Order: sequence, then C-alpha cells, then structure tokens
Amino acid sequence: MNVKLLCRLLGILASLIGSVMLLSLIWAVPSIGYHTDAVVEHTAWEAAGIRGLVLSSLISLAVGGLLFRFGRGADGKLFRKEAMAVVGLSWILATFLGALPYALSGTSRGPSMRFFDRGEQVEPLLLLSRHRTNVWSAWKESSGHSANEYAVLKAISNSSARGLSRKELVSRTGMSNAPGVFQQLKSKPGLGSYLIAPGEARNAPVDRAAHYRQRWMKMGLIDSMFESQSGFSTTGATVLNDLEDPYLVPHCILFWRSSTHFLGGLGIIALFVVILGQGSAGKSLMRAEMPGPTQESHNSKMQHTAWLFAATYTVLNIVLAIILFFLGMSVFDAICHAFATMATGGFSTYNASLGHFVADGVNGRTIEYVVMFFMLLAGTNFTLLLISVMGNPLQLLKDVEFKTYIGIITGVAIAIITMGLINDDQGFSSPEKAIRNGLFQVITIITTTGFGTADFDQWNHFSRGVLLVLMFVGGCAGSTGGGMKVIRYVLFVKILRIEIEEAYHPKIVRQLRIGDKPLEDQSLRRTIMVYFGLIAALFALGFLFVVLVEPDLTWGANADNKLIDSASAVASTLNNIGPGLGLVGPTQNYSSFCAINKVLFIGLMMLGRLEIFPIIVLFAPRFWRDQ
Amino acid sequence: MNVKLLCRLLGILASLIGSVMLLSLIWAVPSIGYHTDAVVEHTAWEAAGIRGLVLSSLISLAVGGLLFRFGRGADGKLFRKEAMAVVGLSWILATFLGALPYALSGTSRGPSMRFFDRGEQVEPLLLLSRHRTNVWSAWKESSGHSANEYAVLKAISNSSARGLSRKELVSRTGMSNAPGVFQQLKSKPGLGSYLIAPGEARNAPVDRAAHYRQRWMKMGLIDSMFESQSGFSTTGATVLNDLEDPYLVPHCILFWRSSTHFLGGLGIIALFVVILGQGSAGKSLMRAEMPGPTQESHNSKMQHTAWLFAATYTVLNIVLAIILFFLGMSVFDAICHAFATMATGGFSTYNASLGHFVADGVNGRTIEYVVMFFMLLAGTNFTLLLISVMGNPLQLLKDVEFKTYIGIITGVAIAIITMGLINDDQGFSSPEKAIRNGLFQVITIITTTGFGTADFDQWNHFSRGVLLVLMFVGGCAGSTGGGMKVIRYVLFVKILRIEIEEAYHPKIVRQLRIGDKPLEDQSLRRTIMVYFGLIAALFALGFLFVVLVEPDLTWGANADNKLIDSASAVASTLNNIGPGLGLVGPTQNYSSFCAINKVLFIGLMMLGRLEIFPIIVLFAPRFWRDQ
Repeated sequence: MNVKLLCRLLGILASLIGSVMLLSLIWAVPSIGYHTDAVVEHTAWEAAGIRGLVLSSLISLAVGGLLFRFGRGADGKLFRKEAMAVVGLSWILATFLGALPYALSGTSRGPSMRFFDRGEQVEPLLLLSRHRTNVWSAWKESSGHSANEYAVLKAISNSSARGLSRKELVSRTGMSNAPGVFQQLKSKPGLGSYLIAPGEARNAPVDRAAHYRQRWMKMGLIDSMFESQSGFSTTGATVLNDLEDPYLVPHCILFWRSSTHFLGGLGIIALFVVILGQGSAGKSLMRAEMPGPTQESHNSKMQHTAWLFAATYTVLNIVLAIILFFLGMSVFDAICHAFATMATGGFSTYNASLGHFVADGVNGRTIEYVVMFFMLLAGTNFTLLLISVMGNPLQLLKDVEFKTYIGIITGVAIAIITMGLINDDQGFSSPEKAIRNGLFQVITIITTTGFGTADFDQWNHFSRGVLLVLMFVGGCAGSTGGGMKVIRYVLFVKILRIEIEEAYHPKIVRQLRIGDKPLEDQSLRRTIMVYFGLIAALFALGFLFVVLVEPDLTWGANADNKLIDSASAVASTLNNIGPGLGLVGPTQNYSSFCAINKVLFIGLMMLGRLEIFPIIVLFAPRFWRDQ
Repeated sequence: MNVKLLCRLLGILASLIGSVMLLSLIWAVPSIGYHTDAVVEHTAWEAAGIRGLVLSSLISLAVGGLLFRFGRGADGKLFRKEAMAVVGLSWILATFLGALPYALSGTSRGPSMRFFDRGEQVEPLLLLSRHRTNVWSAWKESSGHSANEYAVLKAISNSSARGLSRKELVSRTGMSNAPGVFQQLKSKPGLGSYLIAPGEARNAPVDRAAHYRQRWMKMGLIDSMFESQSGFSTTGATVLNDLEDPYLVPHCILFWRSSTHFLGGLGIIALFVVILGQGSAGKSLMRAEMPGPTQESHNSKMQHTAWLFAATYTVLNIVLAIILFFLGMSVFDAICHAFATMATGGFSTYNASLGHFVADGVNGRTIEYVVMFFMLLAGTNFTLLLISVMGNPLQLLKDVEFKTYIGIITGVAIAIITMGLINDDQGFSSPEKAIRNGLFQVITIITTTGFGTADFDQWNHFSRGVLLVLMFVGGCAGSTGGGMKVIRYVLFVKILRIEIEEAYHPKIVRQLRIGDKPLEDQSLRRTIMVYFGLIAALFALGFLFVVLVEPDLTWGANADNKLIDSASAVASTLNNIGPGLGLVGPTQNYSSFCAINKVLFIGLMMLGRLEIFPIIVLFAPRFWRDQ
C-alpha cells in the first residue's frame, strides 16, 4: 500500500474542504443572503457562524497541510487498491471535517422538552418537532394539564424554544388569556415548571416535585457527523428541526450544509466515476460507451474526462441556480436548491423543503417542473449526457438504462396518480395537481433527491409502499443519484433469463449483453447479484439494529409503526434518499433517533453512497497487508 | 420433451393421491377419532365429509387412470428437463386434486357477517374471526347499536354462526336479558336484522331498510386450493376459522388436511431431494456428502436412496405420533400433529394450534419440548441425519450448515428471551416459560413449521422484527423445511469474502469451498446469488401486489399496519411458514384476504416450496420447444 500517496491525496482533499468552507462566510452578512421572510431582529453578522466556519477551516487546512507534508515525494502511480482506499478514506475524512462547522458554531438542532420528577429525569429526552403530535397527545393525557395549559405549552414548544411575546402567545393559541395561563403554569403547585429562555443557564435547580424544561439542543459531534455525511453522500436526511430561524441555524452554516451536497456530487461524478467507475456496473458501462478511458492505459484521457465531467456538473448547477433566481428565489435559496438538485441531495433551506415555494402560484409550479427536469438530468448517466450534448442526442434514446429509467418513472407515476385520484389523497384535488405531485415524488425518490412538496406519507398505502420499494431502484450508474442503479436491475433481468435457460439446459453458456455488445467483464454476472445480496443483508441487519436500539418512546404514545418506520429509515439512508415513512416522513426528520442509531445511519449512508466495497475493504486486514 | 413419460408419472401421482384420500375416511366415524372435548350431538358418521372424500378420490383415480393410459409405452429415461417438468406439474396437479375434498364436502371456512342497506351490500364481505376485534369495534361505532346489542351480536358471531341456545347466549354475554335483546334486534325498526341458521336458504329477502346477515361461508375453489397448496407445500397457512367444530369442518376432512402435509413432506424428501437435489445448493451438498448418487450414472442407487429417505421420514412420523399419543393426545391428534411437525407444516386440529395442549401442565410442557426436538430434526438435512443414524453421529457436528443452523437458533433465541424478559412480554413471566416460549417460536419459524404456542405478535417490536427476518432463513437444504435454507447463507458469506478480496485484487481467483472440499460446481457462486435476488424480487412484487389489491377495510377501522402485515404475509407464504404479523399473526389466519390475493399466496407458496425454477420454467416457451 502506497501510504504516502494516500496521505498526499487526502491532504489535497482536506485543504479543498477547508477552502470551500471560507466561501460560506459571505452569507454571514444577513443583508446579502437572508430569506425575505426570515426573522430580522438580528445583529449585523452571524458571529457564531463565522467563528465556527473559520475555526473549522483552519483545522481542515492544518490537517490538509500535515497530510500533504507527510506525503511528500510520493510515487505518482495510482493502482486499484490505492484508488479504493482513497475513495473510502476521503469520504471518512470529509465527514469528520465537514461536521466541524456545525459543532463549532453551536448550531441548534431544535427545541427539546424534558420531564423531571423529583430531580430525576423520568422519561428519555423527547425532541418535539412541530409535527410530532403523537408525542404531545401522549403527554397531554398523562400530565394532568388542562386544554388551555396544553395549548400554551405546545405553542411555546412550536416557537422553537425562543419563547413568545404576550401578543404572539395570544395569536398562536387563539386564547385571549394565554399569558395568564402561562403565568399559572410557571407557579403551578405540585407540578412546577419553568421554561429556559435561549442563553439561560442549563444548570437551573431541579429539586421541584415534578416539572418540565424546555431548551435548545445544540448539535453534538454525532449530530454534526450525521448532517455532514448526509450532505456529502447527497442523502439529504437532516436532524435540524427548524432551518428558518437564524438564531438556531446561522445562514452561513446553512450554506455550508448545501455546499457539502455540491462537493459530494462533484466527488462522485469526477473522482468516483472516473477512478473506480462507480462499481463494476458503471465501469462496464463506461467501457462500453466511452471510447478508451480504461484505467490501465489512458491516464491522461481519464483526467481529461474527469475535468469534463466536473465542468459539466458545475455548469448545470449554475444554470439551474440562475433559472431558480429568475423564478423568484433569493440568490441564497437559488444556489442552495441548485446544489441540492444537481447532487440529488435534497437539503433545503426551508422547513417545508421545496414545498415552501409551491404555494406561490405560477412561479411555484414552474419551479417544481424545472426542478423535476434537473433532477431527471442529475439521475442520468453523465457519460451519456456528455455524448448527447456533444452532438449525439439520439444516443440517449438508444441507451437501455436510460429507457428503463424513464419507463419506470412513467409507470410508477401513472400508478401513483391513478391511486391518488381514486383515494382522493392529499394533493390530488385536481388532475394537474395530481400529475404534478405524483410525478414529483416519483422523480424525487427514484433519483434519490428527497425534496418534499407533498407529504406522501399521508397518501394511500399502495402509494407509500411503491415509493418505499422505489427507494431501492435509484438513478442511473455514473450519475449523482444513489440507490442500486437502474442498470443493475436491467442486468438482473437479463441474468435471470440466462439462468432460467441454464436451469434446464446446463450445457448452454450464454453471454451477458448490453444492447448488441457482450460485456467484456463476464464476472459482472456474479458481482451484480452479490451486490443485491449485500444490499438485502445490510437492509435486514440495519433494520433489526434500529428496532433493537431505538426505544419505543421515540414514537410517543403508539409505537405500532415502529417496524415499518425503522425499515423505511434504513432504506432511505442506505439508498441516500432522505425522507421515509412515519417518523422520518417528508414532514419529519431524523432528530428523534438516539445517538447510536444516528451512527448507524452515518455508516449506512456512506456504504450506500460508495457502493459498499470501498468501505468494507478498509476493514479487511489483508487489504492493508498484501502488496 | 418426453410428454408420455410426464403423463405416466403424473398419472401415478394422481392415483396415489386418490388412494390416500380414502385413508381419511375412517375418521368420519366420530367414535374413533374425535377430540374428547368436541361437540358430540352428532350423527353416527360425517356424511358430507364422506361424500366429499369419496367423490374426490374417484375423480383423482379417474384423472390418474387417464394420464397413465395416455402415457403407455413411454420411454423410461428421465432427463433433467423432464425431471423439472414433473416436479412443477405434479405440484400443480396435486394442488388441484387436494382441493377437491374441501370443496366437495362443503367445509365451512367460518362465519361471515354482511351489512346491507336497502338491498344493496354496502360494505365488502367481512369475515369475522374471533380475534378480529378491530373490525368489530369499527362496526360498533358506526352501527348505532347499544352495548348490549353489540355484545349479543358478537357472541353470536363468535359461536361460528351456528346460533346459540338461550342458556348459551346468557352465559356468553354475561347478561341475564340477552335473549330479550336478541329478540329486539330481530325486529329493530329501521335497522332490521336477521340471522340465517345453518342450512337455511341463502336467498332470503333483502328488501329491508338496513340489516345484517350472518351465515356460514363454504370453501370455494380458491379457498380449497389455498388450503391444499398450504398443505402440500408444508406451509400451514389456513383459511379455516374454526377447526374444532365438526359441523363446520368434518374430522375426516381435517385428517385429509394433515395428510397433505405428510404427502408434501414425502414429496420433498423422496422425490424432490433425490431427483433435483432441491436446488443447486442441495445438489452440491448431496454430491459432496453422499458417495455416488449423481443423476447421470447411478440411477438404481438414487432410487435406493429415495426409498431410504421415504422410510426414515415415515418412521420418524410414526415415532413422533406414538410419543404424542402417550403424552395424552388422541390417536387422531397425535397423527395429525406428527404429520405437521415432520413436514414442517404446522396445520393443527385446534384453533389454538399446539397451544391447545400447553395448558395441560407437565404433559403440555413435555409435548412442547418433544415437538421442538422433532421440528429441529425435520429442519436438518436428511442425508446428514441418515449418515448420523447409520453409525457416524459426529458427522453432524462437522457439518458447517448444521452448526450454523444450531448457532442461529441459539443466538436468536437468547436475544428473544432476553428482550422478552426485559419487556415483560406475554408468556415471559418465569425464566422457564421464557426459555420455552422463546425457543419454541424461534424453532417453529426457522424450520418454517409455524405452530403457535404463544402469540409472538404481542411481543416487543424487536422480537417481532427478528422473527420476520428469520422467516427468510429457513431450515437446512435437503430437509422438509422451507425458506432460503441455511447453506445459502453460509455460501453467501463465503462468496462475499472472495468478492471483497477480488474487488482490490482482480487477478486472484479463489474457489468456493464447503469444509475442506472445493465445490464441484463453481457456477454455484452465481446461482446462489441469483436466488437471493429472485426471492427479494418476488417479495417486493408480492408485497406491492397485496397492498394494491387488498382493500383497507380488511384491516377494519385502522389500516395503519397494512404495509407491515402485508409484507409479513408475503414473507410467510413465500417461505412456507404460516403465521406472520398482525392480520396474519399466530392467532389469526388468511381467511380475510380477498380471493385475488389468495391466488397470489397459492403461487408464492408453490414458488417458495419448489425453489422457484421448476415453476418458472413451465412458463418459458423455449422450455417446451427445445429438444
């Protein structure tokens, strides 16, 4: 193993990440990038965000410098083993460095409420996002509060723990005496309570008979790693409950969050696709389609291709950002959403995800259709895109993977639209809305983007089930899309046909073909099936782990959906989607999972993104020993 | 394709089935085989059951005779293709013939209640098993009945539609005025109602404003096919709601039902294992372990082995039946439960399954442990069992599949017992009970028997999830157990190790080994993975189909568990287990599914049992065309 070369390459990566972090600093000036409707009683700049970014950048640059220095004089040859190690290790390093800005800026993942009984915490920490009504109603029944008191507490919780003015409290509860109820709550005998305002000391006395506390939850190391990995792996799963409040999440941090999508997508397209051919499926496709770029011989041509890919990807990002800007987004929102779309990531800057813009009438609808189109592009093989752009658009229609990809989208969308109309689901009130919502969710899931515009978790069970299964399909090989990739399914069907024939004609040997050409690498017939088995095994083991570790209380009063929700969370992270069903549905997030499961999800996102092998080999002792 | 030979073999099978049917006739005499606690106000014999069995037997013998006659003068050579065709077609033929006794005897699958509004049926047919309380409470809320009326209706429904005497009605509802309430119900203005007694005409007038009707549901063709397929495939899933009432299910039919398990197990062990080696995994294992019996050369040795297997299997059945008889079962129950155990089927003669005997104290516990042991045997490779019995018991401990099988059982049982004790689940009140219940459910699921002694669906979510995943493991290759077989998982892990090494060392070629010996058939490395992919695909497609076709109303008021329940039903039938989660949990059955889904389940059971290929090839036109 050429360790020096490894270090040099990792050093370059760390320095790159450190530099890109600094680019986010500009958004720390509220007047430049803020949402028009953001809370504006704010200082001239985001001090905490700046501190976090600058510190993180310095650490990254220092790590990069050290690694680069250690790798001085490295032999320049990159063999297959080193390539695999670089991909795996660089992802791990990036996850660590990318997590620093969240942790060092004191970003809050949301309000929390804890229940104490005589100084002891009686229930595990409950994170109350605004949609977790089941937790609320469970607590309502057991707490002995009146309906009014309950309404006040809920309003305060929903205000993201910042507290509410008298006027706001009245307007949010609809009670004219709401402030009075709040005063009563503060001094309620037997069930004492108080609410910690932002910035107040955590270690307030806890010796009352029974009380509750509400406070901000800062992102710890694991939360930060989760958010970072979710960004780089272009998953888009988040632990942040309130993105819109700059007190909780500074805008410069929000921009860094979206930048990780861009970097992740770039990494996949430029580095991963070219060096490792994104798994054997992509590699073979690459060989079949592109003239020449095999690993052993045409090193310079390969580099050329990498640059070409990176340029195309960047240009597509810019084009989409400009379009979104002209459709009414702020510069900040336009760039962030372009990053999220082209990387098939799905991080938004709003709690309602892309749905925030949908209410805006014509522009909103246009934004949806534009994003759909660019998600489709992002899920298409980049080699194919390049060939099409460089003068041969018919190639797109000849490609069996692309045709299948479009075919699946069309078929599933028709099924979901039909079932949505029959069941009169939410968002299917008119044919236009039905087509738009149905098509959008199908594209956002199959491309593994995970933007939310409609809450598909409220749809009929068939639509929910189909979207759950669709998570395992994913985009085309050689795209930024995650999942198992369409080409693997195409080959699976072909392999199956051959196997069936061989079952009764054992002496017949047939070759696997894509289009007219037989695949050079016939061992693919095995590797593809091994990949199916691996994904199934990871899914089953991840599912059992989550169900074992996660307490039922995470689901609140009724944990009936624990099995299906956990399965969907594992499917969603393993395939780099983002949203799932129930607890992690489109209007929810991953914040309520316990820390151990967040670590699991970090691992699943990484395994899914790198198609398992580059990570698994790092744990094989022989991988490091052998020459 | 040697069609004549096919016909001759199928003719033999049909005649065999027709003859075995006649063996069930003896149980039509109540004094011989009835449960001691069965309803005894009964005629001297079961006329309907006898009629059904004799008619079915005649039809089977006629079909067999015709096929045999058509196949006269067939060439005796059985090639691979013919062998596959025989296995696939014989299973289909057996399913048809085995269904006849149910359909022709007018066996009832249970009580049904239908709701009518002005002559039109307003809700789909609801099948109310005694545990479907959710359906009842949904209807209670919407029907406008008083609590008393509701209690009376429920008691009548639970009485299996036979109606209740005045005294029984009082004792079952706990109301002294229950008969009065019943009279009120019969003449309730606006919401008229009547109850059809057994044997009463179906076409009673339906022109009242709104009313409900209760009646027996006879098994139709699809129900009968389901029960027959479930028997032959040794699944043990049932559509019968009340097994204990000879008015609904004659005892001779019940015996035929258990006989299908015996025949199915015999078919797998003798015919399938020897001819096709039960899929490639079993075949290779067979070649590796047994001296000689390959298909091409040692035809007579193969036949000898088949007879040896059949004899061992039959002896084990007899031994178990005798033990169960001495533990207090009637002859009838002992034979039926021995059939169900050794075939890893799971059909019982009681509604509470094997749990019926558990309440009996010491004998009950002993029965449980004995059945556990014999289930373990039934899930073990028969070749291995034979070798062990014939003088080399250490071979058992050397076998990697058997060691893994025992290892999985031990590991999962420890996990379930621990979690059960922590969560204080139902049936975990003492350590002895915990070990017994935990171990029993693990063995019953992994061997794919599906006997019920505890309702694992009421356990904690982790235990439910583990059992769900365990359904995909199954017994050892070459046993009567279904599922994917332990050996495939052993080989999967081995293949994975090789693949990981080849991922960074593409030039290394390693052989797949079991124990010390490399496998002769290295294409196994591919076929095994294809099988994983196929099972995953069938599972996903089956799941989507069930969710699409089944109306939410099947779940009653709350269809929240539709996704997980449907997934478990598909997993359970595909892997030939029987019980699943929720709607098809251990205390439930498959009767409430709609007819289309029952057809799907019939197909899944058959595909799972025959390891997919022998059925799939029947649909390949080339299979029939080629020489």
